[in-house]
Amino acid sequence: MRAWQFVGTNQPLEANEVPEPHARPGTVVVDVKAAGVCHSDVTALDDPGWMPLFPTLPRTMGHENAGVISEVGEGMEHWKVGDRVGLAPVMSDGDALGYGQWDGGFAPKLLATDDNLVRLPDAVPFDLGAMATDAGLTAYHAMMTTGGCKAGMKVGVIGLGGLGYIGARVAVLTGAEVYGAEVSPTTRELAGEIGLADVADSITAFTDKGLDLIVDYAGFGTTTAQGVETLAEFGTFVQVGMGRLEATINTYPLIIKQLTIRGSKSGTKEDLAGIYELMESGKLNPPMNRITHADIPGAIDKLRAGGVVGRFIAIYE
Amino acid sequence: MRAWQFVGTNQPLEANEVPEPHARPGTVVVDVKAAGVCHSDVTALDDPGWMPLFPTLPRTMGHENAGVISEVGEGMEHWKVGDRVGLAPVMSDGDALGYGQWDGGFAPKLLATDDNLVRLPDAVPFDLGAMATDAGLTAYHAMMTTGGCKAGMKVGVIGLGGLGYIGARVAVLTGAEVYGAEVSPTTRELAGEIGLADVADSITAFTDKGLDLIVDYAGFGTTTAQGVETLAEFGTFVQVGMGRLEATINTYPLIIKQLTIRGSKSGTKEDLAGIYELMESGKLNPPMNRITHADIPGAIDKLRAGGVVGRFIAIYE
Repeated sequence: MRAWQFVGTNQPLEANEVPEPHARPGTVVVDVKAAGVCHSDVTALDDPGWMPLFPTLPRTMGHENAGVISEVGEGMEHWKVGDRVGLAPVMSDGDALGYGQWDGGFAPKLLATDDNLVRLPDAVPFDLGAMATDAGLTAYHAMMTTGGCKAGMKVGVIGLGGLGYIGARVAVLTGAEVYGAEVSPTTRELAGEIGLADVADSITAFTDKGLDLIVDYAGFGTTTAQGVETLAEFGTFVQVGMGRLEATINTYPLIIKQLTIRGSKSGTKEDLAGIYELMESGKLNPPMNRITHADIPGAIDKLRAGGVVGRFIAIYE
Repeated sequence: MRAWQFVGTNQPLEANEVPEPHARPGTVVVDVKAAGVCHSDVTALDDPGWMPLFPTLPRTMGHENAGVISEVGEGMEHWKVGDRVGLAPVMSDGDALGYGQWDGGFAPKLLATDDNLVRLPDAVPFDLGAMATDAGLTAYHAMMTTGGCKAGMKVGVIGLGGLGYIGARVAVLTGAEVYGAEVSPTTRELAGEIGLADVADSITAFTDKGLDLIVDYAGFGTTTAQGVETLAEFGTFVQVGMGRLEATINTYPLIIKQLTIRGSKSGTKEDLAGIYELMESGKLNPPMNRITHADIPGAIDKLRAGGVVGRFIAIYE
C-alpha cells in the first residue's frame, strides 16, 4: 500500500510502498476512510526539536483518523470486522498515531488498540469522525472536561476559528448560553450559524453577563487577562490556545472573585465518545476541505503558508 | 462598657462608653476573652474607599474574636451560657464583625449568631482561638479547602511569615511533605520549627521534587510565575497573597502540564472548626504579641509603621 512517510526534519513526505499491517494480539486493523491533516504535521516536518518523537524512520504520519475494522487480533473479539471507529490519537505508551512505534493514517490501513478505539455512530460520517479526533477532541476536552460546561451555564468563548468554532458549538448544543469574542469581523459573522447569544471583538464586552466559564482558544495573553477581569465570582477560565505563551494577569480579581484558571491539553477517548454523541444530532458541522490521499503533501504546504479556513480531511477510496 | 470605635477615615479610634448588648432572638452574647488586631484595621482607618463598609457610625471594630457565651437568645438553645466559642468574621448578610451592622470585639461583649459561632475546644486557649479566626482561617482555607492538601502530598509554601507560617504548619500537621520559599534569611530559620522538608529563597529550587500543590502567601507576581514553572503535571497553584497585584506567567507549562491556578479569599466557619481541630494537638503555635484592651490603638499604630512579627492579640480581664 502507498504511505506518506516522515523521513527527517526539513525533508518532504516520501510516498513509499509499504506492506499492509496484520492484526497481532491486542490490535485490530482499521481501513482508514478519512484522515485529517493538522498544523502539527507542519511543525513535525519543520522543527528539529520534534525529531525525538521519531525514534524509528521512516514513519507513516497522520494522527486524525476514522475508518472500518477489517481484521481482529487475538483478545480483541469485542470488536468485529465492519465496525465503524474513530481513533483517539494518543496511546497509553505516550506516543500518538503517526509517531514513535505507531504508523498513522496517511496510508490506507493502520493498527489500533483499545487505547484509542472509539465506536463511531452510524449517523456520523467518516470525515467528521476523523476531524473530531484532534481538533474536536481538544476543543471538547477544554470546554466539557476541563471547563465543566453544563446546560444553563453562561459561557464565553474566545476565538471562533478552528477549535473555538467547535468549542462554541459544543457549548451551544450542551444547552449553555454562549458569548463569543473574535477579532476578525469575517469570523464574527459565524455567530448566527454557531447559535451564539452575542458576539464582540473582546470578551470584556460581556462583563455584565456573569460568565461562569470562559474558554480561551486563542491564547494571546491579553485574552487571558481579559477573561480574568470578565468572569463572575467562582468562575473558571480555561487556557487551551497558545497564540502567545505569556500572560500578564491582575491577581486582584483572581483572589477576590476566587477564580480558577486551568490549562487544558488534548483529550481522551471518553471525550471522543462524547463529541461523537453530540455529532449524532447532525448539528455540529465545522468547516472542512475534503481532499484525496494524493493531495496530502499539498495540504501541508497550504497549512505552512497560513490563512486556511477549515480542516483538511483526506477521503480514501 | 468601654469600646474602641471607628468614627471616620483618618480619625483615631474613639474610646466610648456604650451599653452592653443583650441577646435578641437568633443571637447570643459572647464575652470576648481575646481579640486580634489586624492589618485590615489599619486600612479601614486610613482608606476612604472603605467608608461604604460603615453605613452606621460609630462602629466598634475588631473581627478576630474568641470568648465565652454569657446570654442565649430565643431559638439559640443549642448553645448554653459558658460555652467556649470562636467567631468566624463574615456573616451571611456579607458584613463582617466590626463592620456594617455588627459590632466587633474591641469591646468586652458582642452579639453573634449561627452564621459565625464555632465551638472552641477546651485544649485551645482564647488567644489562639482569636488569631485563628482571620489569619488562621485564610491560611487554612487556601491550603486545605482551595488547595486540597492531603497527607502524603508534596506541597510548596511561598512566604513563611504570618499566613504562610500557619499554612505551612497546617500542611505539615496534615501529613504533607512541605517545602518552603522565603526571601528573608531570618524567617528561613523558622524551617526547623515549622517542620519543613527543606527551605530556599525561591520555590524554583524544588523543581525536581514534583510538587502537587503550591500555596503563595506572598503574592509578588514573580512568585506566581515561579510556582507555575515549578509544579508537577496536574498540579495546583493557590494565590492568596496580594504583595503585588500583577503576575506575568508562562502559559506553556500551564497548558502542557494541565495546571490549575486558583484564587483564595478568607474562609468559612467549617474552616475555623478544621483549624481548631489541628490546634487541639498543641502543635500549631504561630508567634503572637499579647496586649491589653487599652493597647489596641497603639498596636494599630505599630502595624501601620510595619515590621511587626507575630499577631497582636488583646487579652481581656
